[in-house]
Amino acid sequence: MIRATSTWLTFKRRFQQICQLSDDTIGQNRLVYSPNWIAAQSALIHFGQQIGLTTIVDNYGNVYLDLPGKDNQVIATGSHMDTVINGGRYDGLYGVLGGLQALHELKERFGTPQHTLRLISFSEEEGSRFKTTFSGSKYYALQQTVPNLTDSDGVSFEHARRTAVSQLQALKNTIVKRPVIPASFTELHIEQGPRLVTSQDQIGLVSGIVGQRRFTVTVKGQSNHAGTTPMNNRHDALQTAVNMITRLERIAHQLSDSLTFTVGQLTVSPNASNVIPGTVCLTIDVRHADDSVLNQFEQSINECLNRVTDPLIKVTANRYVRDLPAAFDTTLLSQNEQIARRLGLSARVMVSGAGHDSYVMNQVSPTTMIFVPSEGGISHAPNELTHPADLKAGIKLLMASLHAQAY
Amino acid sequence: MIRATSTWLTFKRRFQQICQLSDDTIGQNRLVYSPNWIAAQSALIHFGQQIGLTTIVDNYGNVYLDLPGKDNQVIATGSHMDTVINGGRYDGLYGVLGGLQALHELKERFGTPQHTLRLISFSEEEGSRFKTTFSGSKYYALQQTVPNLTDSDGVSFEHARRTAVSQLQALKNTIVKRPVIPASFTELHIEQGPRLVTSQDQIGLVSGIVGQRRFTVTVKGQSNHAGTTPMNNRHDALQTAVNMITRLERIAHQLSDSLTFTVGQLTVSPNASNVIPGTVCLTIDVRHADDSVLNQFEQSINECLNRVTDPLIKVTANRYVRDLPAAFDTTLLSQNEQIARRLGLSARVMVSGAGHDSYVMNQVSPTTMIFVPSEGGISHAPNELTHPADLKAGIKLLMASLHAQAY
Repeated sequence: MIRATSTWLTFKRRFQQICQLSDDTIGQNRLVYSPNWIAAQSALIHFGQQIGLTTIVDNYGNVYLDLPGKDNQVIATGSHMDTVINGGRYDGLYGVLGGLQALHELKERFGTPQHTLRLISFSEEEGSRFKTTFSGSKYYALQQTVPNLTDSDGVSFEHARRTAVSQLQALKNTIVKRPVIPASFTELHIEQGPRLVTSQDQIGLVSGIVGQRRFTVTVKGQSNHAGTTPMNNRHDALQTAVNMITRLERIAHQLSDSLTFTVGQLTVSPNASNVIPGTVCLTIDVRHADDSVLNQFEQSINECLNRVTDPLIKVTANRYVRDLPAAFDTTLLSQNEQIARRLGLSARVMVSGAGHDSYVMNQVSPTTMIFVPSEGGISHAPNELTHPADLKAGIKLLMASLHAQAY
Repeated sequence: MIRATSTWLTFKRRFQQICQLSDDTIGQNRLVYSPNWIAAQSALIHFGQQIGLTTIVDNYGNVYLDLPGKDNQVIATGSHMDTVINGGRYDGLYGVLGGLQALHELKERFGTPQHTLRLISFSEEEGSRFKTTFSGSKYYALQQTVPNLTDSDGVSFEHARRTAVSQLQALKNTIVKRPVIPASFTELHIEQGPRLVTSQDQIGLVSGIVGQRRFTVTVKGQSNHAGTTPMNNRHDALQTAVNMITRLERIAHQLSDSLTFTVGQLTVSPNASNVIPGTVCLTIDVRHADDSVLNQFEQSINECLNRVTDPLIKVTANRYVRDLPAAFDTTLLSQNEQIARRLGLSARVMVSGAGHDSYVMNQVSPTTMIFVPSEGGISHAPNELTHPADLKAGIKLLMASLHAQAY
């Protein structure tokens, strides 16, 4: 019997080492190409080298830790190393270090696999420093590069990228390349929502990612004196916006229980207590697994615009995001269902309401995701929490899944 | 027959001279104690001295132009010299120069009056520089002084006041004092609303000023991920606010046609398109001539707060303004009605939806107001406009009213 030196304590030590780079009271901060981010990716390379994995860094700072197999086919897992500003400890990092833990334990217990096992730590997924998201996985999978962008301090993406990545690539025994696309990709991630906690399941097996559309709506009325303008003589942009939001919320509710509808941003101009609002700008975010439901909702938005009959109020809507729903690989999904059952883990199949690197990877490889519960459904905040038992269950399932695929 | 040298052209020349102090494209800017304001009050003193009026300046920079009568009883008219930021040409200034025009013409046509006629140009009414309103009339009528305040550049009210007022008081032949309270006060002003234009009346005879209450409402829910949080698991502060506004608007409509209800300010936090709003702050401004209607509405606000049953959403309301309605003098009002009829002017009795210096003066003297139409109901903006025929009609009525009172 092989003695497994890679225990839960090893995972915890690695996890704490990276979390300690950030100030724990305000949350995790590993914005892409920042000093904390460089330190974290460097630490990961070090972890990989300690257990004899091949360490690869591409020109976007994606880190690949390979356990070479008997053939060149690659079975990959991973997630992203970056965080939102003042983020939580688990989003991204759990999938990176959980994946490393799985490779570590598989190597110790079963030795060289048939196919190469790869842990990927993507450089950036959150879009919290530059106005681009998934730039790591897009570079790897789709060979997409980021256009000319600057962060809020005026630092260009190119400058930040070159400076940071050169430090990783200068590390000893690091191979510089963009490696081949894997035969499959499995991402371990926290749910970031309350459904697993509510249903008391340990595992979410993700069948796909919702489609998403975002709109900006601008209501232009006429600002005027709040005291001297009679109610029947107003062209109040906020009242018009309020009526529209009320109507759209009702329509969203009627269309589908699983359609999410969010007005997250709303600004009023001139925004003075004694002035009737002249202009309101708001955003609408709607998500659903079925693109035809999103089509219907978009039509409802347009119908809402046409219901405004006051000629002195102009309402315009502009769609600025349209992401199609993604359906993940059904073979990997049912394989994971069987493994979960065998391991005695209570699992449910679910659709992800958030985007992930898997959305990108799914375009080039059979892809699946494994979710673990998020306490209170809280994410992107310092009080993000997944209990150790759930973290362990996710890693256990991932390891079994990778074993089934690679050995 | 006396030749009237004070013609419409004199009024227009004076009006243009003061308006030219501001950049006409961005609007009128005579914030209290600013260089433009000093120049305007100085010009007014000069106008008064040119036609032989006694010129008085008090310590707040209120300017009084007296046409001494055979006794010491004072019949006063006037308005304010200050403007909002980028304001219109007529708000305040029309009542000051229209009053001067009336005194000028009465002096030329009828000589010394029985009672002293006084034109008052109040220093400040708009509250656009310091967080205080009506400081001019409050100093004159109520002997109220302004507490320690600073403007947005950090200049204190006291420093600005002393510097500016000393320049006015240093002008030749200027008497420094706070003169006696008048036996009556009549303010000529633009309506700042659309009612006279709508009813096609030339004159509004103002019977009083609406009572006004302002509230801040804070809705604290829980911000969360817009994609991963199911609709039935949200504590959305904006949706709660939207429902409340919808309900209150309906209640306002049912309570009284003349109740104005305005949500002028609304801010969302964190205000990101993909985050469910955690906090919304908004203001409510309600006005009505009957204080009991405002009582009922305030009760409705409190009932709305209690309707929020989600224990994770806290709604609080705080009233920060409560101005009682003001009823103006009925004798002056019916006198002006009769005079308007005699002059062939179409007049309607109305309540003012905005506060004015008359609100303050009414607390110490029988007070009335004369409104003239505002094109499009627009005010506090560069495109504020009252047509010359209407300006003339207002001055004509004021002059006849002052004649009836003082001769």
